[in-house]
Amino acid sequence: MTINGIVAYPVTPFAPDGRIDHHALRAIIDRLLSVDVSAIAPLGSTGEAAYLDLTEWTETAASTIAHIAGRASTVVGVSDLTTEGAVRRARIAESLGADAVMALPVSYWKLTALEVQRHFEAIAAAVRIPLMVYNNPATAGVDLSPEELWELVRDVENITMVKESSGDVHRMHRLRELSGGSLPFFNGSNPLALEAFRAGAAGWCTAAPCLIPQEVTAFHAAVVAGDAVTAERVFARIEPLLRFIVARGLPTTVKAGLDRTGIPAGVPRRPLLELDGEESETLARLIESARG
Amino acid sequence: MTINGIVAYPVTPFAPDGRIDHHALRAIIDRLLSVDVSAIAPLGSTGEAAYLDLTEWTETAASTIAHIAGRASTVVGVSDLTTEGAVRRARIAESLGADAVMALPVSYWKLTALEVQRHFEAIAAAVRIPLMVYNNPATAGVDLSPEELWELVRDVENITMVKESSGDVHRMHRLRELSGGSLPFFNGSNPLALEAFRAGAAGWCTAAPCLIPQEVTAFHAAVVAGDAVTAERVFARIEPLLRFIVARGLPTTVKAGLDRTGIPAGVPRRPLLELDGEESETLARLIESARG
Amino acid sequence: MTINGIVAYPVTPFAPDGRIDHHALRAIIDRLLSVDVSAIAPLGSTGEAAYLDLTEWTETAASTIAHIAGRASTVVGVSDLTTEGAVRRARIAESLGADAVMALPVSYWKLTALEVQRHFEAIAAAVRIPLMVYNNPATAGVDLSPEELWELVRDVENITMVKESSGDVHRMHRLRELSGGSLPFFNGSNPLALEAFRAGAAGWCTAAPCLIPQEVTAFHAAVVAGDAVTAERVFARIEPLLRFIVARGLPTTVKAGLDRTGIPAGVPRRPLLELDGEESETLARLIESARG
Amino acid sequence: MTINGIVAYPVTPFAPDGRIDHHALRAIIDRLLSVDVSAIAPLGSTGEAAYLDLTEWTETAASTIAHIAGRASTVVGVSDLTTEGAVRRARIAESLGADAVMALPVSYWKLTALEVQRHFEAIAAAVRIPLMVYNNPATAGVDLSPEELWELVRDVENITMVKESSGDVHRMHRLRELSGGSLPFFNGSNPLALEAFRAGAAGWCTAAPCLIPQEVTAFHAAVVAGDAVTAERVFARIEPLLRFIVARGLPTTVKAGLDRTGIPAGVPRRPLLELDGEESETLARLIESARG
Repeated sequence: MTINGIVAYPVTPFAPDGRIDHHALRAIIDRLLSVDVSAIAPLGSTGEAAYLDLTEWTETAASTIAHIAGRASTVVGVSDLTTEGAVRRARIAESLGADAVMALPVSYWKLTALEVQRHFEAIAAAVRIPLMVYNNPATAGVDLSPEELWELVRDVENITMVKESSGDVHRMHRLRELSGGSLPFFNGSNPLALEAFRAGAAGWCTAAPCLIPQEVTAFHAAVVAGDAVTAERVFARIEPLLRFIVARGLPTTVKAGLDRTGIPAGVPRRPLLELDGEESETLARLIESARG
Repeated sequence: MTINGIVAYPVTPFAPDGRIDHHALRAIIDRLLSVDVSAIAPLGSTGEAAYLDLTEWTETAASTIAHIAGRASTVVGVSDLTTEGAVRRARIAESLGADAVMALPVSYWKLTALEVQRHFEAIAAAVRIPLMVYNNPATAGVDLSPEELWELVRDVENITMVKESSGDVHRMHRLRELSGGSLPFFNGSNPLALEAFRAGAAGWCTAAPCLIPQEVTAFHAAVVAGDAVTAERVFARIEPLLRFIVARGLPTTVKAGLDRTGIPAGVPRRPLLELDGEESETLARLIESARG
Repeated sequence: MTINGIVAYPVTPFAPDGRIDHHALRAIIDRLLSVDVSAIAPLGSTGEAAYLDLTEWTETAASTIAHIAGRASTVVGVSDLTTEGAVRRARIAESLGADAVMALPVSYWKLTALEVQRHFEAIAAAVRIPLMVYNNPATAGVDLSPEELWELVRDVENITMVKESSGDVHRMHRLRELSGGSLPFFNGSNPLALEAFRAGAAGWCTAAPCLIPQEVTAFHAAVVAGDAVTAERVFARIEPLLRFIVARGLPTTVKAGLDRTGIPAGVPRRPLLELDGEESETLARLIESARG
Repeated sequence: MTINGIVAYPVTPFAPDGRIDHHALRAIIDRLLSVDVSAIAPLGSTGEAAYLDLTEWTETAASTIAHIAGRASTVVGVSDLTTEGAVRRARIAESLGADAVMALPVSYWKLTALEVQRHFEAIAAAVRIPLMVYNNPATAGVDLSPEELWELVRDVENITMVKESSGDVHRMHRLRELSGGSLPFFNGSNPLALEAFRAGAAGWCTAAPCLIPQEVTAFHAAVVAGDAVTAERVFARIEPLLRFIVARGLPTTVKAGLDRTGIPAGVPRRPLLELDGEESETLARLIESARG
């Protein structure tokens, strides 16, 4: 398994009664697989994993992996506030056939560097599949430096990938430098997609393909082809949408956008509230412009 | 989907630390699929479903359905002490791709006929896939007459199959009579397998293929071929094993037997205790004789 | 703590939204404490413990123990299908201040004598408070002989009491005989209350005080006073009610009766259905007659 | 119930096997009640509520409330990532006899002002006891302005108290101004305790009494008596300890300090790691100096 290029993040759709809507989930996965994505990453931040109970989490992982059925790699988010919870999720994901797992060091309390390290080591030790470590200070409340990320990759056998969502492109340059170019790092900051690929990112972790699959993969194809002009042109067209969905919250906006584009995915779980009428109109316009 | 013939019941294997052992589970399924079974039925009584938490149950259902991958039908046990619990399991099973669900009216309190009826109706209404209703007075503490079983099939759209484990072959004749031969009923009482097919059973629900897959399917093939002599001969050979595993408890004996035959499936969950040395020897001898 | 006399079993009342109704629970406890009961036993069969999740179970145990506040002993039911589940409940009950715990060997699979023994030993070993072992073959599917019950008491330090609900008064005589009169055994079969006291029972475990507290304690006072005439007269008056609530199911009938007598306790959890109109009228009449 | 003065935060002690240690919990509560605290606040950040499952949470709430038994007010933390989870905890807390509940708008995703408002409204609507709203941007990832906090108090009937932990004393002045002095606000930032009382805080929410109960209440008594000299002198003595426990994490340091001072409270739950030897020595010295 090599993950490379677009790593697409589905939302977790809910039926009106609050249960997981597996029918909509499969429709979303089909949309993501209608274009050339390298991997699908259920149960990340976008997947509202933090708001699911463990049975719902397991259902969603199972359903996603089974429906993908090898047509793309699967990278399953296993973040949990406790080490035990993350370990249990990682083991379940592996058992269900995930190709890799991904973890963000979410923690109620600020973690020391050693606590973060032990947390990731425990998750890695619990499975044989690769673990992608994920830095997102805004969400996790912990900021991992490129040095710390690199040390995890260097020292722990099955930590093999990094996702960087700090929004600071210099860190990607630094990761490349530290690893001598050997470390596949992924950009998780949507507005940074273009710069990140220029900095050597192996891929882009993004929920945008839920709404504009062709545009995201056209952008990536241009990047791969070295066609900077097209890449910039497409990116300029999609960037306002990327900024909006990040600013207003991914589960909320992506669910609203899915609804607008033919896949009723329900509303996010409270405390998240759905978009109001005006926001919804803005979103529709931005999807429209992104499609060009 | 037509289920017909052998419906094989896997145990739920546990690793030494008590978690679901998905590796062993897949080995068991592979053994069941190495012969001609019509369906595999995880999370029945044999699958210790009553001793699993809902996340473990979901993991096991997902893993089983994914590994079978359409090579046989899947009939997932969804029995629970509460109607809400059974409904939730049925919905998860359907979402994960089960072909059918099966429910036994287990209940702490003795249920009235109306309570049983409403319980089954609620499960059936929660899904679109077929529901097999299951009578096993010894386990459930509730005994459903052929008339009650038939009325459920007649009146509720997706209740389409019956499993009868009372051990009374006359009830099967009565089911055939009531339904004018239209109802597929399955025998769940191992020692009754031969008589049940004579009474018109559509199939045999059994954990025995975990241990003697060839023998069980050879027996069934002889039944289908109308070769009574072979059927009786094979059955006579396997009957002592069938009687032993039923008498000493299916999870306990089948796990011990799997261990003896090359698939370490762990021990049952307490209060169940594994076989002692002498019982284990008896089991080994009975498997040996059954194999002829 | 000596438990002696009436051990009263509250139901677990539910609010219309299905949650535990702590307000009604306190009203029920107050009614039980308005007369001379020796102990209150939440989370038994009558308390629908089998239909509660562990958080609801814990809430109910805590609320009951706190509201009793030492005015009677508390004997908390900790029965669970798994040994681990029963052990966890026992530890929680002890932590919350229970005076004793009680366990029925409920098990999906029929248990061997050794499995029952190990199950009880594990529960007893997990706490320091006394454990009352409970035989009720109709509910548990396992029947413990007086000899087996006595051996548990004799061999395990904190197993100190037995509840016998087989409905066979000879077993009580045998328990007395085996223990040389040293074992406090309690009758759990309502219609047998009079005979059981004659056989030397230390007490009567019953949900009837939820509906007729004065009558139950008047009966017991007559028994204690050696006033056989009064005891028989009162018992004859309440016996039809006792037979009805046992036959039609304790949670169902006691909740209906509470509603009739001024404490809205909600309906039992499905699959249990509430009484129909006619049954409800019968119950009202029987309560009326019992009150004389 | 009026809460005023010291609101003391116990840790949630764990036994070596990871379960709640109710014995240690009671010892901690006894220490807190050995001095003049106004309220005890279990299941806050210090109580590792974020790392407990709902049954453990319920056990801890029940045990704490029962052991306090009215000797101080109880303010139970009910924060949860989902609105439904916070509502369920609030209802349980009320049922178990809590005097008030407290909630921090923790959320995986950044919440809008409206989402925070609806979240608090839902919790408040679920109970009749007062709700203390809590601002702690560092932990919650959401920052509520004094204006927003005041509007919640003004508009929602049972939101009656505010806890401010932003560490900005100006916000307290602003809260006083906005409410015309009518709003009881509590300081949750330990190093700010002196300034906060000067700004009119109704109380101080702190875990420090677990370690130095006399010193904290002596400080508060001096504040109440208007004895600024003593207040400053005591505060100067305890401030280094306050700064250390905040900087190194409250559950970790308070548990280590309890162990040092005679109450074995176990270690925090992973990913949190216990203090190393040097940190532990520092802590011991700081407790020593604080005690003077």
